[in-house]
Amino acid sequence: FLAWVGLGADGLSSSAYGPEEAFKALGHHTHLGLYLAVATALTVFIISLAYSQVIELFPSGGGGYRVATKLLGAHAGLASGAALVVDYVLTIAISVASGIDALFSLLPGIFLHLKVEVEAVLILLLILLNLRGMKESIKVLLPIFMGFVLTHAFLIVYGIGLHAERLPALIPATLSETRLLSQEVSTLFVIALFLRAYSLGGGTYTGLEAVSNSVTMLAEPRIRTGKWTMMYMAVSLALTAGGIILLYLLWDARPASGQTLNAVTFRAIVGELPWGGDTLLTAALLLEGGLLFVAANTGFLAGPAVLANMALDSWVPHQFSQLSEQLVTKNGVLLMGAAALAILVGTAGKVDILVVLYSINVFLTFSLSLLGLCLYWWRNRDAEPAWARRFALAFLGLLVTVGILLVTVVEKFGEGGWVTVLITSGVVFIGLKIRKHYLAVREKLRSLDQVLDNPPLPEASPPPPLQPEAPTAVILVSNKFQGLGVHALLWVLRLFPNQYKNFVFVSVGEVDIATLRGADIRDFRDNLEANLQRYVDFCHQHGLAATAFSACGTDPVAALDRLCREIVEKRFPNSVFFAGKLVFAQDNWLTRLLHNHTAEALQRRLHLQGLQMIILAVKVS
Amino acid sequence: FLAWVGLGADGLSSSAYGPEEAFKALGHHTHLGLYLAVATALTVFIISLAYSQVIELFPSGGGGYRVATKLLGAHAGLASGAALVVDYVLTIAISVASGIDALFSLLPGIFLHLKVEVEAVLILLLILLNLRGMKESIKVLLPIFMGFVLTHAFLIVYGIGLHAERLPALIPATLSETRLLSQEVSTLFVIALFLRAYSLGGGTYTGLEAVSNSVTMLAEPRIRTGKWTMMYMAVSLALTAGGIILLYLLWDARPASGQTLNAVTFRAIVGELPWGGDTLLTAALLLEGGLLFVAANTGFLAGPAVLANMALDSWVPHQFSQLSEQLVTKNGVLLMGAAALAILVGTAGKVDILVVLYSINVFLTFSLSLLGLCLYWWRNRDAEPAWARRFALAFLGLLVTVGILLVTVVEKFGEGGWVTVLITSGVVFIGLKIRKHYLAVREKLRSLDQVLDNPPLPEASPPPPLQPEAPTAVILVSNKFQGLGVHALLWVLRLFPNQYKNFVFVSVGEVDIATLRGADIRDFRDNLEANLQRYVDFCHQHGLAATAFSACGTDPVAALDRLCREIVEKRFPNSVFFAGKLVFAQDNWLTRLLHNHTAEALQRRLHLQGLQMIILAVKVS
Ligand SMILES: [K+]
Ligand SMILES: [K+]
Ligand SMILES: [K+]
Ligand SMILES: [K+]
Ligand SMILES: [K+]
Ligand SMILES: [K+]
Repeated sequence: FLAWVGLGADGLSSSAYGPEEAFKALGHHTHLGLYLAVATALTVFIISLAYSQVIELFPSGGGGYRVATKLLGAHAGLASGAALVVDYVLTIAISVASGIDALFSLLPGIFLHLKVEVEAVLILLLILLNLRGMKESIKVLLPIFMGFVLTHAFLIVYGIGLHAERLPALIPATLSETRLLSQEVSTLFVIALFLRAYSLGGGTYTGLEAVSNSVTMLAEPRIRTGKWTMMYMAVSLALTAGGIILLYLLWDARPASGQTLNAVTFRAIVGELPWGGDTLLTAALLLEGGLLFVAANTGFLAGPAVLANMALDSWVPHQFSQLSEQLVTKNGVLLMGAAALAILVGTAGKVDILVVLYSINVFLTFSLSLLGLCLYWWRNRDAEPAWARRFALAFLGLLVTVGILLVTVVEKFGEGGWVTVLITSGVVFIGLKIRKHYLAVREKLRSLDQVLDNPPLPEASPPPPLQPEAPTAVILVSNKFQGLGVHALLWVLRLFPNQYKNFVFVSVGEVDIATLRGADIRDFRDNLEANLQRYVDFCHQHGLAATAFSACGTDPVAALDRLCREIVEKRFPNSVFFAGKLVFAQDNWLTRLLHNHTAEALQRRLHLQGLQMIILAVKVS
Repeated sequence: FLAWVGLGADGLSSSAYGPEEAFKALGHHTHLGLYLAVATALTVFIISLAYSQVIELFPSGGGGYRVATKLLGAHAGLASGAALVVDYVLTIAISVASGIDALFSLLPGIFLHLKVEVEAVLILLLILLNLRGMKESIKVLLPIFMGFVLTHAFLIVYGIGLHAERLPALIPATLSETRLLSQEVSTLFVIALFLRAYSLGGGTYTGLEAVSNSVTMLAEPRIRTGKWTMMYMAVSLALTAGGIILLYLLWDARPASGQTLNAVTFRAIVGELPWGGDTLLTAALLLEGGLLFVAANTGFLAGPAVLANMALDSWVPHQFSQLSEQLVTKNGVLLMGAAALAILVGTAGKVDILVVLYSINVFLTFSLSLLGLCLYWWRNRDAEPAWARRFALAFLGLLVTVGILLVTVVEKFGEGGWVTVLITSGVVFIGLKIRKHYLAVREKLRSLDQVLDNPPLPEASPPPPLQPEAPTAVILVSNKFQGLGVHALLWVLRLFPNQYKNFVFVSVGEVDIATLRGADIRDFRDNLEANLQRYVDFCHQHGLAATAFSACGTDPVAALDRLCREIVEKRFPNSVFFAGKLVFAQDNWLTRLLHNHTAEALQRRLHLQGLQMIILAVKVS
């Protein structure tokens, strides 16, 4: 239940802008809204159920990026990751824009020209709060969330109740009107009109992916909690969104300048209350705004999390995986905030444009994830007895999401769709460039590594014993750039001959262990240790006492910090730490951005605890 | 003469916008233009002659910043420096805006709405060219410059010649009209109107400071060359600007939409040519545009030069003094370009607003420099026999520049004046903050330094001899943060006991030696060497062989690089280099921006030459 509150804001808040866009797309054929209400509720359940499978298969989170990477391959993962990052930027922009729309519905129209300015200030405020490391407290979240649910539930129930007399007539009326319209124009036109409105309401479903991205944050048993959270979200969103469309229909809502359709409808409903109507309206819209700001804030938390995952695969600068480093977190917040601000100003805060950009990105992730699921069930159709049912569900979800994606892109390409396609392609392009750079550097360093593979000298058996109290060189071996460790070792031997009695090699496997299964983790660890063993063997062959330690973790700096302190405290009190630092003949912002952050962050941390770490330059030519 | 070409673009190009603004400020009382032409020419000479004194007193350049710092004190220097940096940003913005205005005068009005976009693209192009390290070649400059001078001289002479018949009547007509106006309204009004127009034409004199900022780039004998360059500039500018105002008057120029006043006037003049008129007009305006773009480009070169000077005094990040570091140069170019772009877009590329901002900043520097000169002559009135004449000239210049500054600020405060005041104050404020931070860090490190001042142990005479072939630790002693060297030394002793047989201390005096006089330089060097000697003594007292080397230079990285290579090549072939690096408990962008760039740049350079430099972390608590 608390998870629902924590993660639900992103999903539930969409009912502030999703239904409105769908309903508006019907034009004056509002009677089709009845189908829309039903289809919307149904779609929420289809997507939610399909995404429950993601939770089940990826109980350790990672969301769309990991799913696509594991099930469809690295490049699909990059596309999904890029879409997700932009998705969260847009979450911030649209939630703030829609929230201010809701609040401004309460104010007279003369303030309208200030809207974009107020929205920009609000984003700046969110940036500032997040830079200061504000934690969302459940004490703030719970009242907003419950208040939103209660006021909206009341308004929907009361609103439907007041016009309940229209309900019985609604279905036959809708059917006959539909028949009439089919005859007048064509059945195809009616279907097209409906599908268009249905797709443009895609904004309603955005945020359903939030749970799957954050399964690790849930209480144990995770999968069960995750599925229940998903169900809570689905039910609340289906009822709210479907209910709101029904209200539009029953109360014959028409767009009014300076007000959201929700505000227009709610205003009509509270007008029928004997007393306290204005208070209720104010409360409902304030809570709607509040929930949207909470949703905007999740963008600041979830965006950097996706970047951290992508950093592990070298799509974005490695430093983004150092979530324990304040400066990295701040960079992430600034990046998300600045991008959101740019998009907000670029679209002049227009929710109808933003929702198009937003839908396209979210449905790109949806489609890729569900495609991955379909492939997964198909591949495992022999191993899994219930595969057909699950495949069918994933496939149905895939059809729905691809359908909505295609209709939205085609219908709205000229009205902003191209922007989001361009931006996301841009992120993909940058990702490809960054990975290419990293691979090129790794290749250049590999030659250094070969010194370890020299024909082994006759083994000096037994290896020299370790002398724990003697001077010890602890050398950091990078898991990503193998040659760095070799180079550091050679420089230590050259600069400080006979100085050190023990050589200790440490390495951290920078990998999202959470998403690896047991066997994979074991493989990964074995690989890591085998690599370290080559260094130890090399030392032994040269008559040097040596040993190695390793650890795994998503955050390399934090893991190394822990490992190094353990070595000093428990094993080799007389240790000096060494690490390599890449130095490029062509020094530029790119090389600064992409390299050496782990070594420098670690040096800083160790030094603040009184330990000295020496960073040796290693030339990349 | 070549210097005139190289430095003259900034000064001469002002005739494209300065006279126009002054003339427009007259409204329909254009007859006052005659006084204006005379006053403008005269003012050019007054400012030029006064600034010749700056060249004489500061034969090694540095311009307004050094002058104010030396003669008025550090804070006046900061104000002058901040004004100069913003001045160069505005040089870029206004020159590009005015250049495009000139070129667009040739095109039909339908392109006008693209003006700001074209200007922004041009600035981006200039940024790109400067990032790629484009050098201005005299082959490009000379034709543009001479072409501008020749076409404009021809147009002015020919234009005056054609309407020469009006000249004899002009003076009596002007006098009588002035008398008439004085009677109709009031003499005070006439004077006020004239002074206002005169002051708003202040843009004409911008760029005269260029020579004094760049004396070091001139051929020997510098002072003579500088004064001749100044005279060339003054004559050419006085004739061009005065001539153009006269043309306006004789040809009765009236502003036309989408055209500069120069374009209107020239168009009228070439209309009288028997043939080739259009070609001449096109050539003249193209050359005007070209000269303005050259002037804009000087902003990219001169701005970072001012920043480098200010970095030596800790007003801006120290790294800006590392002009030999590519990345620093690029940062400077980006900073200037981005600021110019922001101002250009913010003012929508309107030359009449930009010229106000520009004048205020240039005249602030003018006023501070000339105030400094006045004080200098007054203080040296006993030593200098010709002081009175020189004081009088400087004082006259001061009156003129302060007058123009005050009138411009007061008249145009609401129309943009406040922006430039705000921006320049902002730069001053940031400068104060940065220096305060540096001083606080220096203070914190000072305690470390006191280990050197411990009561001297009984001198172990004689000091142990140096062993040039033995392992040598070369330790970098920062001239700005004394404690860094001590800390590095202590860490070396602790980490590598008995490893090094010689301790060599190196230090670079980061100072603009060019602007120091002989005696000051000697003082400065003595101070530097005395400080190094304390390290040597400390080693001797502890029985360690030690020596020291020092150098002076504006660019610390380049000077240290040279010094270190000399030590390895000529004295201690078996050297390892050590430097301290400040590590802050609170790591943030500011500390990253402000510290450790010298050590890291030096490490990179040495390593690319096969030398290893070890950077030891030093905690600042
Ligand atoms: K949703
Ligand atoms: K959402
Ligand atoms: K989202
Ligand atoms: K000038
Ligand atoms: K100028
Ligand atoms: K200038």
